[in-house]
Amino acid sequence: MSSATAVRRLNLLTRTIGTGTRIGSMKHRVTVIGSGNWGSAIAKIVAENTKANPDVFHEEVKMFVHSGPQNLTSIINCIHENPKYLPGITLPTNLFATPSLPDAVSEASVLIFNVPHQFVSSICRQINGSCLPYARAISCIKGVDVSPDGISLFSDTIGRKLGIYCGALSGANIASEVAAEKFSETTVAYAPPEGSTHDFPQGLTPVPEELPAVDHVLFRTLFHRPYFHVRVVSDVAGVSLGGALKNIVALAAGFVDGLEWGDNAKAAVMRVGLLEMRKFGKMFFSQSCRSATFTEESCGVADLITSCNGGRNHKCAMLSVRTGKSIETVESEELNGQKLQGTITAREVNVYLKNKGLEDEFPLFTAVYRILNGETKVESLPQLIETD
Amino acid sequence: MSSATAVRRLNLLTRTIGTGTRIGSMKHRVTVIGSGNWGSAIAKIVAENTKANPDVFHEEVKMFVHSGPQNLTSIINCIHENPKYLPGITLPTNLFATPSLPDAVSEASVLIFNVPHQFVSSICRQINGSCLPYARAISCIKGVDVSPDGISLFSDTIGRKLGIYCGALSGANIASEVAAEKFSETTVAYAPPEGSTHDFPQGLTPVPEELPAVDHVLFRTLFHRPYFHVRVVSDVAGVSLGGALKNIVALAAGFVDGLEWGDNAKAAVMRVGLLEMRKFGKMFFSQSCRSATFTEESCGVADLITSCNGGRNHKCAMLSVRTGKSIETVESEELNGQKLQGTITAREVNVYLKNKGLEDEFPLFTAVYRILNGETKVESLPQLIETD
Repeated sequence: MSSATAVRRLNLLTRTIGTGTRIGSMKHRVTVIGSGNWGSAIAKIVAENTKANPDVFHEEVKMFVHSGPQNLTSIINCIHENPKYLPGITLPTNLFATPSLPDAVSEASVLIFNVPHQFVSSICRQINGSCLPYARAISCIKGVDVSPDGISLFSDTIGRKLGIYCGALSGANIASEVAAEKFSETTVAYAPPEGSTHDFPQGLTPVPEELPAVDHVLFRTLFHRPYFHVRVVSDVAGVSLGGALKNIVALAAGFVDGLEWGDNAKAAVMRVGLLEMRKFGKMFFSQSCRSATFTEESCGVADLITSCNGGRNHKCAMLSVRTGKSIETVESEELNGQKLQGTITAREVNVYLKNKGLEDEFPLFTAVYRILNGETKVESLPQLIETD
Repeated sequence: MSSATAVRRLNLLTRTIGTGTRIGSMKHRVTVIGSGNWGSAIAKIVAENTKANPDVFHEEVKMFVHSGPQNLTSIINCIHENPKYLPGITLPTNLFATPSLPDAVSEASVLIFNVPHQFVSSICRQINGSCLPYARAISCIKGVDVSPDGISLFSDTIGRKLGIYCGALSGANIASEVAAEKFSETTVAYAPPEGSTHDFPQGLTPVPEELPAVDHVLFRTLFHRPYFHVRVVSDVAGVSLGGALKNIVALAAGFVDGLEWGDNAKAAVMRVGLLEMRKFGKMFFSQSCRSATFTEESCGVADLITSCNGGRNHKCAMLSVRTGKSIETVESEELNGQKLQGTITAREVNVYLKNKGLEDEFPLFTAVYRILNGETKVESLPQLIETD
C-alpha cells in the first residue's frame, strides 16, 4: 500500500469511527461486487439475511453492476429482477444495484466478491483506497490462479490488493438452482491472520469494537438460509482449490462416460481424483489445507459429484470421446464462445507439476492433461492410474 | 465348535499336513462359494489370477453351484459360461463348477463367499467340519445384519460358524460391468486377530508355513486385475457397513431426484449421508472402523456415488415421489419379486438407533425412515438434516 493510500484510509477511518454517523447504529453494511447469475443469486441470499437479522446488519445491501449500454442497474432497481443474468427470479427489495464501485464499497464493512476471475485485478485497482480499512471480504470466485511458479488464491489476490482480509465461499452450487431456492449446501472459509504477516506487516486493521465481531457465526448468519445450508471452516486454500481441481476430475469422468464404461468406472475415477485433489492441497498448502475439506465439505466431495454429473467440463469431455472430435472443437460447438475451465486448469496444473518434477505423483491429473494433448488415449486411463 | 467337530478337524489337519500330498506343491487352492452374477464375476477374476500366478496358487478354482433342476453345473463346465446368471461372459477354463459343498471346500485354503445373505447360515452349516481348519475366507456379501440388539457382519457370522477367519470385499462393483471387464475398483478388508479372542479362544489355527503367507499381498494378487483395481485395508467393519448404509443414502438421493431438486441437492444429501455412514461406523465399531474407509475407499464414497446414480434403491425412491405411489408398490411393480435392500436396512437401522436413543444423531437416516413410514414428507428433508 502506498503512503498516500495509507493516509487516505486513515482519514476515512477517523471520519467513519469519529463521527459515529457513517456506521450509524453499528451494524455491518454488506456489498456484493458482481451481478452475474451467481453474483445475483448470492446477493439475493445475503439481502434476505440482512433483512432477517436487523440486529447485526443494515437491511440495505448494495450490488455493484457493471452496467452495459442497456443500463442494467436501473432495470434491476425498478423491477427487482436481473433479466440479463438471472431472469425469472425476484430479488429482495432491500437489494440496491449501483453502477459505481466507490459508491458500492465506501461504507461496506463486509464485501462479497463474485465477478469473473479475469476482472479481479481491474476491479481491485478501482476499489483500492475507497473501501474501509477494516472491511472483511469473501470471494465467491471459483478456482485458483495457477502459474508455472505457484498457485495463488483469488481470496489472497483480493486481500493483498486491497490491504484487507478475504476468505472464500465455494460449494456444490449451480447458480440457477440456488436462485430457485432448491436445496443446496456450501462451504465458507474464513481465517484472518493474527498479528503481522507477509501481507499485513502492521497487522490487519481491527474491526471496530462497536461492530459485531466478524467471525464464523457472522458469516453463517449472512449466508445460511433454509434452502442454502452453510458450514464455515478455516481452510481457505482447500475451499478454493476444490473449486478448481474438480474440473480436471470432471473431464476424466466425462472421458469415461464417453467410452460408456459405466458407473463403476466413473465412480473409480472420481474417487482417485478426490484423493489427488486432497494430495495437491496437502503438498502445496501444507500450512493451511485440511484433508477433511476435500472429503467432507460441500466444496470438496459434493461439488465434485455435481460437476461430474452434469457440468460443462464433463459434457464436453464425453462428447469429445463419443464423436472423436477434439475437445476444442466440442467446446466451440457447444459453449457459445465460453471457455472450458477444466482444460485450462488441467494444463496449468500440469505445467506447475512438471516444473516441480511431480507429474508421477498425480497420475490422474497427468493422464487428463496427456489425453487432452493427444499424447495418450482414454482407454489407457486404468493403467495410468494403477498404483501398487 | 463341538468336540466331535474338533476331532474331525484335527484328523483332517493331521492328514493334510502329515502326508504332504493333499496340499501338493504347497500352493493355495481357492474356492468360490456362490455362482450368481456377482459370484460368477468374482470367480472369473479369481481364476484369471490363479492361472497368472502359478507360484502361489493352484490353477484350478472350484465354484460351488446350487444346482437347480437344469443342472447348471454341467452346463457351466461344458460351455464355460453361466447362461443363467451371467450370460454372454466366457468363464476361464480353469474354473470348475461343482454342486457339492464338501467337494468345493475340502481342499481349499482360501474360500470366497458370494451367496445371497439369506443362505449364509445354511451354507455354513453344510460346510462346517468339511473345510480346512487353517482356511481363510473373504465374504463378498454386501451389507450387514442389523437387529434391535446389534449389528453383525456377515464376515463375522461366517468366521464364527466355521471357526476360521473371514475378511470382506466390497466396492463400486456392478457385477455385469465387472464381468464385461469394464474398469472398476474394489476394497478388500483382511485383519485376522492375533492370539486368542472371543471367537477364537485357542487362537486362530495357523496357516501351515509351507503355504505362502495369507496377507494383504496375497489377496491383492488374488483379486487385482488390469480392469479391477484392488486396495487391501484392515477395516472389515467399515468395508461391510459401507455396502449396507449407502442404500439408505441412495433412497434419500432418489427422493430428491423425484422432486427434481437438481444436482446441488442430490450432492448435498450424498455428502450428509456419507458423513452419517462414517459416524455410524465410528460410533458402533469404534475398535476397528477407520474414518478413511468411508471417505477414501471404493467401498465407501465410490460405492455411494454408483448407488446414487443408478441403483435400484435410488430408482424406486425417485419413482415413488414422482408417481405418488408407496415405495412398496413401486418395488413390486419394478423389481419382479426382488426386495429393495435400502428400505429393509433403513428400518433395521432405525430400530437399532431408536433402541439406543440415538435417532437425532443420524438425522438423514432417521428422515429416510420417517419418509418411508409416511411420518414426514420428502419436502422436509433440508429442515430435518439442518444442523447448527
